[in-house]
Amino acid sequence: MKLDNWLEQRARTSPDRMAVIGPDGDLTYAELESEARSLARRLVSGGARRGGTVALTMSPGTGKVVLVHALMKAGAVLMPLSDRLTPAERSAAVAAAGVDLDLGEPTGPGGVEADMPLLGEHDMDEVHSKLLTSGSTGTPRTVSLTYGNHLFSAMGSAFNLGVEPTDRWLCALPMSHISGLSISMRSVIYGTGMVLHDRFDPEAVARSLEDDGVTVISLVATMLRRLLDEGVDLSRTRAVLVGGGPVPADVLEEALGVGAPVVQTYGMTETCSQVTTLTVEDAPRKIGSAGRPLLTSHLRIEDGEILVQGPTVSPSALDSDGWLRTGDLGRIDDEGFLFVEGRADATIITGGENVGPEEVEAVLREHPAVQDAAVIGVSDQEWQQKVVALVVPTASDRFDRDAVFEHCSELLAPYKVPKRLEVVSELPKTASGKLRRGDLAELLTRSDKDA
Amino acid sequence: MKLDNWLEQRARTSPDRMAVIGPDGDLTYAELESEARSLARRLVSGGARRGGTVALTMSPGTGKVVLVHALMKAGAVLMPLSDRLTPAERSAAVAAAGVDLDLGEPTGPGGVEADMPLLGEHDMDEVHSKLLTSGSTGTPRTVSLTYGNHLFSAMGSAFNLGVEPTDRWLCALPMSHISGLSISMRSVIYGTGMVLHDRFDPEAVARSLEDDGVTVISLVATMLRRLLDEGVDLSRTRAVLVGGGPVPADVLEEALGVGAPVVQTYGMTETCSQVTTLTVEDAPRKIGSAGRPLLTSHLRIEDGEILVQGPTVSPSALDSDGWLRTGDLGRIDDEGFLFVEGRADATIITGGENVGPEEVEAVLREHPAVQDAAVIGVSDQEWQQKVVALVVPTASDRFDRDAVFEHCSELLAPYKVPKRLEVVSELPKTASGKLRRGDLAELLTRSDKDA
Repeated sequence: MKLDNWLEQRARTSPDRMAVIGPDGDLTYAELESEARSLARRLVSGGARRGGTVALTMSPGTGKVVLVHALMKAGAVLMPLSDRLTPAERSAAVAAAGVDLDLGEPTGPGGVEADMPLLGEHDMDEVHSKLLTSGSTGTPRTVSLTYGNHLFSAMGSAFNLGVEPTDRWLCALPMSHISGLSISMRSVIYGTGMVLHDRFDPEAVARSLEDDGVTVISLVATMLRRLLDEGVDLSRTRAVLVGGGPVPADVLEEALGVGAPVVQTYGMTETCSQVTTLTVEDAPRKIGSAGRPLLTSHLRIEDGEILVQGPTVSPSALDSDGWLRTGDLGRIDDEGFLFVEGRADATIITGGENVGPEEVEAVLREHPAVQDAAVIGVSDQEWQQKVVALVVPTASDRFDRDAVFEHCSELLAPYKVPKRLEVVSELPKTASGKLRRGDLAELLTRSDKDA
Repeated sequence: MKLDNWLEQRARTSPDRMAVIGPDGDLTYAELESEARSLARRLVSGGARRGGTVALTMSPGTGKVVLVHALMKAGAVLMPLSDRLTPAERSAAVAAAGVDLDLGEPTGPGGVEADMPLLGEHDMDEVHSKLLTSGSTGTPRTVSLTYGNHLFSAMGSAFNLGVEPTDRWLCALPMSHISGLSISMRSVIYGTGMVLHDRFDPEAVARSLEDDGVTVISLVATMLRRLLDEGVDLSRTRAVLVGGGPVPADVLEEALGVGAPVVQTYGMTETCSQVTTLTVEDAPRKIGSAGRPLLTSHLRIEDGEILVQGPTVSPSALDSDGWLRTGDLGRIDDEGFLFVEGRADATIITGGENVGPEEVEAVLREHPAVQDAAVIGVSDQEWQQKVVALVVPTASDRFDRDAVFEHCSELLAPYKVPKRLEVVSELPKTASGKLRRGDLAELLTRSDKDA
């Protein structure tokens, strides 16, 4: 099925409505369309081609929203990369994804702006974007999302939270993530405004809530905790979505207590954002639940694991039975509300980011001072979980912690770098030498006691 | 693509929200689901089968909304028939459409309520309903609408007008029409409430606006005229949709003048309701326009005729190029706003109903006192157009007007019966005997002057 280019459509139907309010400028729909068109022409002359993958560092900004739309008009597949990736991580990701064009950190590609033909419509099944996710092997893995995935995601969200022509959705989340990217897609599909922050700063959020007509805001638990601590008034928004991993009940209760319409949501890159979301009306009596499935999403639990089906799910993420195996553990209560109960695998969820421990372990082992390493997530008030490493040194008498930290910081994005590094004499292993992850927490507790 | 049964989904996600406020009772989503399930079982034991067409007389009422959903659960195709059809018209429609089961004017079919299997999901391309439209030949014609048509129609409307979880949409339009039926589909897709009136009564509308939390209302021009005349306050709604044919500019201006957020809309059975709709913000500066295309609709003008394409269009209504030829004349201004300028054919639009003159002419000619007849639409303050017949009597000296009116009333729905009957000595015809419709208006004026 053919879909109109959403921005072109919105530039026609609501040219004067504000599309993006951002750190590097505000644009109406007419202005966004015009900038995206001219950038698309430059991109096409610069080598972006239909169906080709174009990588770019996606620091949040109005210019990047223009780029997202320019790539759609060029028919290219967007591969947004976090500005927190180290050069090594970034190169590995670009190499693994089969990128046709790497825009790096573009200030806007140069080149002639010829009158190149631009796409006015897209196929529902056409790939719109490839997003990086944490792989469990250390090899970067991307998830392909189609135009249809984005459309149905926007629809499901709208028919749960409602959508008003005057809506403004505040995004202080990474635009390289589905959390931030989906806000930009939803906004253009609805013809509503996106308020974009270049980083999360509680004071800036407070000002924006006051000045920018914000009606909806998306947060991860760590952000909500900080906004509450700073006394930021969220009560005049229509909805505060909190996702990116489990949210502590006391944080939700405190937020509801000060009149913030918080609704927990469950989703991931593979589902193009929300699968389930609470409604504002159910939130107080269902604290801890991520809500019920949105209009077109199906959910079931198999051996404790959450399985998802529906038109928002990346076609490439489905198993042979047509379900996405999320790797998340959960249960559904008798009213159909989902409660997420952690991960089936060892993935650590820290401040809304997923970290595969294997990737961190591999980096640790590369350091000459490290003989072996294991990484686990430890409960934390601020980050929900924090990354902790257990390290067996090559020579325990002269182990240089700082050198190992520095090594990690060079090769890993900041959120993956262990917040703590514990030296142990050996790691729990099976007879065949496989790490017994289930025993790591106890080992850490023992090591704490010894200290 | 598979879609969940919308009602089942809504009964899960918003069980306690009001689904229907109607003349014969109010139902929450949980109650509507439960009633529809048990009725569906009775229907299946009574012979409703998947894919079979079930005809019923669709007088507006809560019970009929239950029936609509029960048929979806049975997987049967709904064929809603106006309660204004004469027995002859109804029989002809049922015969022409290949109906498998005719529920007549059911008080609720009897029969065992066995534990019959019900459909929990539908295919996007599955036919949901067959609606009768005015044929130009006198033979009843139906339009098949799919689940996908209804879904995309609901989406397009939502992303233009917005949708709020607390919305209540007032329907005083026929539920046998796409205008009324689409309100019931949209409501269940959004999980919002429908306020259903069994007939249009300005006082009842005024009360309902006051008591039922109505936020949106759909009207035809005749109704808006009457509400304004009766001083009904529409200013507290979020949107007043006016469709079903051209709306006089003075009516729109008067409505806007008293603060009613009127937006003209253009749509038809074949497009599953709205194709274009104004936004509340554009309404004052674009009086007379039906707005711009909704999210997934495409529009173009060919030789003055309006052509439509998109996922809301009935697949069976498309021509070989994939476009719907509407038979409506129009133009699109340089900002993309549609102005509807009448019909390419002789269809008369009266009080929101389409009347094919050929059908009325055929009925007139059946009467022994009528030798020949021609029917045209004449401008009218109340009905926009009214049906007027020019009749060549068999014997002009003893022509019995009342007998001919009575004959028409027996065979034609009230809105098709000529409001005026003019006797003429002959009709303008071509050499080959074909009626010259373009000359009828002048003949009528001449006949008026002679009188």
